[in-house]
Amino acid sequence: MKFHESRVRVRYAETDQMGVVYHANYLVWMEVGRVEYCRAAGIRYKELESHGGIFLAVAEANCRYLYPARYDEEVGIRTSIESANPRMVTFAYEMRELSADRKLVTGVTKHVFLGPDLKPRKLPERYRPAFGI
Amino acid sequence: MKFHESRVRVRYAETDQMGVVYHANYLVWMEVGRVEYCRAAGIRYKELESHGGIFLAVAEANCRYLYPARYDEEVGIRTSIESANPRMVTFAYEMRELSADRKLVTGVTKHVFLGPDLKPRKLPERYRPAFGI
Amino acid sequence: MKFHESRVRVRYAETDQMGVVYHANYLVWMEVGRVEYCRAAGIRYKELESHGGIFLAVAEANCRYLYPARYDEEVGIRTSIESANPRMVTFAYEMRELSADRKLVTGVTKHVFLGPDLKPRKLPERYRPAFGI
Amino acid sequence: MKFHESRVRVRYAETDQMGVVYHANYLVWMEVGRVEYCRAAGIRYKELESHGGIFLAVAEANCRYLYPARYDEEVGIRTSIESANPRMVTFAYEMRELSADRKLVTGVTKHVFLGPDLKPRKLPERYRPAFGI
Repeated sequence: MKFHESRVRVRYAETDQMGVVYHANYLVWMEVGRVEYCRAAGIRYKELESHGGIFLAVAEANCRYLYPARYDEEVGIRTSIESANPRMVTFAYEMRELSADRKLVTGVTKHVFLGPDLKPRKLPERYRPAFGI
Repeated sequence: MKFHESRVRVRYAETDQMGVVYHANYLVWMEVGRVEYCRAAGIRYKELESHGGIFLAVAEANCRYLYPARYDEEVGIRTSIESANPRMVTFAYEMRELSADRKLVTGVTKHVFLGPDLKPRKLPERYRPAFGI
Repeated sequence: MKFHESRVRVRYAETDQMGVVYHANYLVWMEVGRVEYCRAAGIRYKELESHGGIFLAVAEANCRYLYPARYDEEVGIRTSIESANPRMVTFAYEMRELSADRKLVTGVTKHVFLGPDLKPRKLPERYRPAFGI
Repeated sequence: MKFHESRVRVRYAETDQMGVVYHANYLVWMEVGRVEYCRAAGIRYKELESHGGIFLAVAEANCRYLYPARYDEEVGIRTSIESANPRMVTFAYEMRELSADRKLVTGVTKHVFLGPDLKPRKLPERYRPAFGI
């Protein structure tokens, strides 16, 4: 799978007094994109945790803010896997305001696979294809 | 203990595009007040969960919004216990903007004590005095 | 319009360490329901603010938490208007986990109409029908 | 001023079902650090906005997550200015769990100065010393 496209509509709660989306919320939307990517690739992240005992801890997050999203806009989140191996996976994101097709934010999150003890654990074989490993 | 007073300073993240604190955040501040009340009464809520195996699930929350808090203001949260028994506890809150001493929000949260299975469980004896039971 | 039904999927960000949705987030979902109700009734809340100069300030919020929502569940928000006049409107909400059709939370939010100065202002005539006034 | 140290206590609302602080919240704490840095340097960020007509828009944010913070822990945020000129400023952050003095997160946020129209604007002379310009 090259990429997956998710959509969110900006909530009032996500704005700040500058009249735009508070910058930390884009990380939440990246999570939405990541989860939907996994679902489209055949993995429910919920089951990865509950049955697989695998947690994706965020090790690094980088965002570039190009243009602010505003209340009630529809935002498309294009999520792809930049690189992956049994120990870690890096997702890349591009977010656009859909009506004007304007690029808002690009970013990357790097994750390590952890076991229920929150210590590093290799991704079990059965989940690897979904991450392109 | 009659009441406990906590303080928070309004974060930018807590404002919305109306230029005031987004209303759901007062529930978060009530949680701050509740936790600090318990700490002052001799219970770390963290230990209630980890050692006591007791969770305080919110069963009801009511807020009256009288005046909006704004960015960077210091807000005092006066927390008291309205009623308590081994099955549930009701906290009452009054929040004020401290520099003008203006009342912002009053509210109540009603909680049931749950075990680690998230089913109702009586509060163990040793924790009762802190709740005035 | 009797009621409007919106949907949200629970985000990881919305859970807490009890493994369920943090209670303040239901207020955010009520906002989602309210905005979608208005949109279905012919009013974009965004335009109400920007063109109408009308803000819906929350004066009161009441929630009853019956059953916790969990990560990745789909939640239906049924929003209706309980009462309305040119000075205020009260919305009622019922939220259900959709796969098991289990009732999660019921609640009410009471709003006053404000002008851009955040002082009370009567709802202009042209917006009244959408609120059933 | 070399750096400024702020403190936050982890709120329940800031945890997620992994039992640790949800990663986006560290960006909120960076904001707390930044605002307190400015206050210690003689600028209330609130006045920068309201009187100076200057907004600090986030252009870039980078976080490295080394160790997770947990509920009720006290976190120290050490904030410094990495570089600054009349058009932009870069803040650096180091966050530590205070009781074990364990490093949690390091990060950087890069900001551009904007006017009330959200277009780039040079920082007025009178505010420059606080940013070491």
